[in-house]
Amino acid sequence: MLFFTQCFGAVLDLIHLRFQHYKAKRVFSAAGQLVCVVNPTHSLKYAPTLCATAQASTEQGILPPCHHHEVVHDPQLVPCTCPLFSCPWEGHLEVVVSHLRQTHRINILQGAEIVFLATDMHLPAPTDWIIMHSCLGHQFLLVLRKQEKYEGHPQFFATMMLIGTPSQANNFTYRLELNRNQRRLKWEATPRSILECVDSVFSDGDCLVLNTSLAQLFSDNGSLAIGIVITTSKVHSSEAEM
Amino acid sequence: MLFFTQCFGAVLDLIHLRFQHYKAKRVFSAAGQLVCVVNPTHSLKYAPTLCATAQASTEQGILPPCHHHEVVHDPQLVPCTCPLFSCPWEGHLEVVVSHLRQTHRINILQGAEIVFLATDMHLPAPTDWIIMHSCLGHQFLLVLRKQEKYEGHPQFFATMMLIGTPSQANNFTYRLELNRNQRRLKWEATPRSILECVDSVFSDGDCLVLNTSLAQLFSDNGSLAIGIVITTSKVHSSEAEM
Repeated sequence: MLFFTQCFGAVLDLIHLRFQHYKAKRVFSAAGQLVCVVNPTHSLKYAPTLCATAQASTEQGILPPCHHHEVVHDPQLVPCTCPLFSCPWEGHLEVVVSHLRQTHRINILQGAEIVFLATDMHLPAPTDWIIMHSCLGHQFLLVLRKQEKYEGHPQFFATMMLIGTPSQANNFTYRLELNRNQRRLKWEATPRSILECVDSVFSDGDCLVLNTSLAQLFSDNGSLAIGIVITTSKVHSSEAEM
Repeated sequence: MLFFTQCFGAVLDLIHLRFQHYKAKRVFSAAGQLVCVVNPTHSLKYAPTLCATAQASTEQGILPPCHHHEVVHDPQLVPCTCPLFSCPWEGHLEVVVSHLRQTHRINILQGAEIVFLATDMHLPAPTDWIIMHSCLGHQFLLVLRKQEKYEGHPQFFATMMLIGTPSQANNFTYRLELNRNQRRLKWEATPRSILECVDSVFSDGDCLVLNTSLAQLFSDNGSLAIGIVITTSKVHSSEAEM
């Protein structure tokens, strides 16, 4: 009986996921857009770490943000850039993607235009939704974070980081777009390099910021669809003068 | 000597204003866009009112938000919609514009695309920047407000209201655009009717919301240029399905 109940639950979950996927596809109806359902992960970075490779640092207790930058001795090596875990890994920039995929199980998607469908937006902060995005010959990391900057008032922060150097990042522009209920919000910027700290991007607020009520207006049944477009930068004459 | 000092100050102010105007024109370089320099006004709505026509209500002390909706008895009459002052005026919808111009000295601008250049963004909250905007045969009220929703953390809220009924408002779409420092933020929505309360739009957060750091990134020398476009609504197939 328990087996049948569980099976029924799993089938219902699948139908729900399929339905969300279908709705997001209709919302972002442009041809060729890939919809990716992204489940939340409770951030463990500032809690005792569960990362298999991070046991060595647990004795130090709660670590300060971006602590890993201090332990890099070889300038050729970069620290682990996973926003979720305090991980002592370090390696060459070229192998960061495979580390994030294999150790932290972050999915990677192909395509210049994708739809990031973050589920379970109601979950309490701190919560992260993360995917990697491969296009234009580079890999990007998209991070959506629910965080309480002001106690009792969670906000959502979203940014895109290039898995590359800051000078490489300057060659691209990313756009995040929300579109629902006759409202549209677009954020366009140059991606930051993964060598910068995602935490400081969010604490500076130099990213797409949504308060809870706006996030609810853009959400459908607890899921938030974010359209993502990455292009190579064009220097607009109007912007160049600013 | 004092006269010359004051004259010199006035000339300097004019040069500064002209310079800001010129910069905003270059930023929003599309032909035919009108740049309007909007000075801040410290909101007196919840302080003892200074409005010439509002002396009758001063005895009641600080009034609750949107209190004026309660005193309308004739359904043909609408209350004063000025976001700055608690004003006991009421009249027909057709004469709201002339009341706002004459009594509250709110400027009115013509043109489908304008640039709203809000000066002195550093002033403490609560501060409002307001203009009326005439286009497509209707008048709109643009309100930018600096407000502390969370103590010690001022935010900026911007919205556009139609000086008309909610059903008339549904025929339009407005867009607010910020563009500077290789960042672009666009908010697009249906304007609310002036018969709804601007305070509740801001408290719901159903508008363009900027935290202080983002406002600084988009500001130039303490002024924030907001590009405004109003169009008649088109029901997008993707949105209609949502």
